[in-house]
Amino acid sequence: MAALGKVYLIGAGPGAADLITVRGARLLAQAEVVLYDALVTPEMLALCAQAELISVGKRSGQRSTAQTAINQQLVECAQRYQMVVRLKGGDPMLFGRADEELRALEAEGIEVEVVPGITTALAAAAATKQPLTRRGVARSVAFFTSSTAPGEPDHPALPATDTLVQYMGGREAVGTATRLLAEGRRPDLPVVVVENCSRADQRIRRLTLAGLGEGLDATDGPVLVMIGEALQLRLHQPV
Amino acid sequence: MAALGKVYLIGAGPGAADLITVRGARLLAQAEVVLYDALVTPEMLALCAQAELISVGKRSGQRSTAQTAINQQLVECAQRYQMVVRLKGGDPMLFGRADEELRALEAEGIEVEVVPGITTALAAAAATKQPLTRRGVARSVAFFTSSTAPGEPDHPALPATDTLVQYMGGREAVGTATRLLAEGRRPDLPVVVVENCSRADQRIRRLTLAGLGEGLDATDGPVLVMIGEALQLRLHQPV
Repeated sequence: MAALGKVYLIGAGPGAADLITVRGARLLAQAEVVLYDALVTPEMLALCAQAELISVGKRSGQRSTAQTAINQQLVECAQRYQMVVRLKGGDPMLFGRADEELRALEAEGIEVEVVPGITTALAAAAATKQPLTRRGVARSVAFFTSSTAPGEPDHPALPATDTLVQYMGGREAVGTATRLLAEGRRPDLPVVVVENCSRADQRIRRLTLAGLGEGLDATDGPVLVMIGEALQLRLHQPV
Repeated sequence: MAALGKVYLIGAGPGAADLITVRGARLLAQAEVVLYDALVTPEMLALCAQAELISVGKRSGQRSTAQTAINQQLVECAQRYQMVVRLKGGDPMLFGRADEELRALEAEGIEVEVVPGITTALAAAAATKQPLTRRGVARSVAFFTSSTAPGEPDHPALPATDTLVQYMGGREAVGTATRLLAEGRRPDLPVVVVENCSRADQRIRRLTLAGLGEGLDATDGPVLVMIGEALQLRLHQPV
């Protein structure tokens, strides 16, 4: 049997092809096979046109059997190819289910390297020009998501940080707003909602915690919701 | 008077020259002048060898007058050059004092664009192969730091997230451990300490919350401390 290949777990970043790291782009151009998520954009895949492309089409909320199948595909690719890339939207180590893929590969003795990616919260902060921390105002940030695991409570305590960022936060963020208001956070606390961050169809909405509590239009793409005093527009900030 | 230049606030990432984004690297190569932090590495500055390089040598904890001087330098550069880069270690929007620089530039009507960078926590997660979230175990993460602003309390409440990441967390993290133990977190909770993340002299230490509470050796470079059940070594994980 041939030597096992190496698997690179690479963060694609939020979507724009030039928001991947230089290291990630170089490795993509060398890959023999690339297994990619539903959130990876076509322009990103143009960076690995030489590779066999396998869509593993996972979206958040899908059942865990799908993850088991991805794990198995990764192992099989490392048995057939020397240079395997697993390309994930955002960063692999934050809401990326990397733990499960690492375990499956390590159990077979397959070497893995992880290349970080720009997580959507930071791309959204850049796109909106709203820092997530502010001296004297916000010096802690939490990234969280609603439950997608069976058996987990749907509503754990909300992080009591200065800034809150909810990933995959469309309708779920309305519930977050309701709970934060009940906890006594002020109704006019700034909220910024970013859809399809860094892509051509990026959409930015500015509202308040009370406004978010009243609901959010249905959306197609990934939604990130940022809440906190740090999100206040600056005096001369162009909108 | 000539038209004002444009300022790019760019995240350099943790240090390795190929962990900047493709967009960041391209803009660096076009810059006329680059104002860079103490944490930006020489290999990163090789990407903008054509530019005038200005060290603004800021380290966390320095007095705010230094920041005022940086703001002023940025404005002056935009008055003299068309293409100005402000290069910051990590990501500009997370513990990067971006708010103050954005305000100073916007007050003068200077156009600013922000390019995100790999924040150290995600580079450390990649380097140690420890995801910060884990299905069924950890679905919220907080990034925080100790106070550096005069008048701020030194010890606000610690975030009650599943995973905690303390930036600039050398000695300060010992106090964090003591407080978490007092709050009832378990003494054998995994802790990973990463110094000089992604650089040639990177150092990774694995300990427990109780061990961190007993102290941490003095270090030279930037230190990141990650705490939580998600940091547990996996069964077959190579160390």
